Amino acid sequence: MRTCISCKIMYSKYQGSACRQCYEDLKAKVEQCNEDLNAKLAFLTMPQPASFSDVVLFADDDDEYPVPVPAHKAVLANRSPVLRAMLDNEMKESLSGTIKIGDVSYDALRAFVNFLYTAEVCLDQQLACELLVMSEKYQVQHLKDFCQKFLVSNLNLDNSLSTYTFAHQHNFKPIIDAALTLITASMDKLASRDEYTELKERDPGLLLEIYEAYFSKQANTQWHNA
Amino acid sequence: MRTCISCKIMYSKYQGSACRQCYEDLKAKVEQCNEDLNAKLAFLTMPQPASFSDVVLFADDDDEYPVPVPAHKAVLANRSPVLRAMLDNEMKESLSGTIKIGDVSYDALRAFVNFLYTAEVCLDQQLACELLVMSEKYQVQHLKDFCQKFLVSNLNLDNSLSTYTFAHQHNFKPIIDAALTLITASMDKLASRDEYTELKERDPGLLLEIYEAYFSKQANTQWHNA
Repeated sequence: MRTCISCKIMYSKYQGSACRQCYEDLKAKVEQCNEDLNAKLAFLTMPQPASFSDVVLFADDDDEYPVPVPAHKAVLANRSPVLRAMLDNEMKESLSGTIKIGDVSYDALRAFVNFLYTAEVCLDQQLACELLVMSEKYQVQHLKDFCQKFLVSNLNLDNSLSTYTFAHQHNFKPIIDAALTLITASMDKLASRDEYTELKERDPGLLLEIYEAYFSKQANTQWHNA
Repeated sequence: MRTCISCKIMYSKYQGSACRQCYEDLKAKVEQCNEDLNAKLAFLTMPQPASFSDVVLFADDDDEYPVPVPAHKAVLANRSPVLRAMLDNEMKESLSGTIKIGDVSYDALRAFVNFLYTAEVCLDQQLACELLVMSEKYQVQHLKDFCQKFLVSNLNLDNSLSTYTFAHQHNFKPIIDAALTLITASMDKLASRDEYTELKERDPGLLLEIYEAYFSKQANTQWHNA
């Protein structure tokens, strides 16, 4: 038995191991790689709002005096094929230099535009849902991946039914799958909750789908165990 | 003795080692980190020339019909404080939307602007020298680091004297140091070369500095060995 220089746990020779040199080299490689890529990222990241703006976006949420979010056509067009099409084709957005974004809060719009410039956003459950819908509408795949990962990792018993309902409504497959796995594993606990009763009243068809998934999983497990 | 799972070399227990799990975890972390950062980089990188350009650059190399390099004020200003100052302060560059870049070839200008958009450039010795001077003039630190690293790693006996001369002329400290180390270690071989004779005729003072560095290094070595 020997002690691992990293986790300090004893391991036997049958497990296999890496010599100190290889381990340290790999560790140095991680640090160097992080350093190089982060320097590149810092260089390419633009703070938003920046100067020389040639377009403004508004959240079209019926506010009488909506606050403009300044941006650059070149950046919007580079990050979203849908915005590119709107700006390229001499549509009214391109001519007026104004883009109205429907069904979205001002905060979500700001976060959306900021993400287009920095590839960063500080998410909570609600913002992730809003941005995921926007990323789908404007085809910003990187933001879509980002929000989906967040929502999957943020899944818990409390939000599993509402997250499933949301994902199902917009057909976000990875979230549907992850939520279903959690729900079908905790069906007994969920059935006594208010969220369950509410969903049953609001959308019994959806609940039915969950049960079908549950039983299909059970059948599979039994088949595997048989 | 055991065999390392990475380099396959035998090592003794006194060297220390990492268990397979820790080594594999670290390896997976490298890959994940690379994947995440590269996705972020791909998202933030803008191809140049892009649409919606609001400024053009010209290489001011006395060409009667210079070829314009299109760009965006916002990007130039974000990457170079010098260009920002030119564009911010209603100087003639900002008003005309035209920036003349002196003492530079068209190819170097294109590579320079492209680097501002992508943080990438394919260097050779001459381009690295041109871009290093530009990065200094326009205070693009990331490009400066990039070119300096290239020139240091590209140092060899053939280019050591010319690289030293170039670096000395512009006071690029890391290159001066690296070139001096190589030159003083190979003084006997260099003294019989044409480059040496040429430098002796053109700039004897510079050669003198090299000799001083050589003898100060010798004195240090003798002192250490004493």
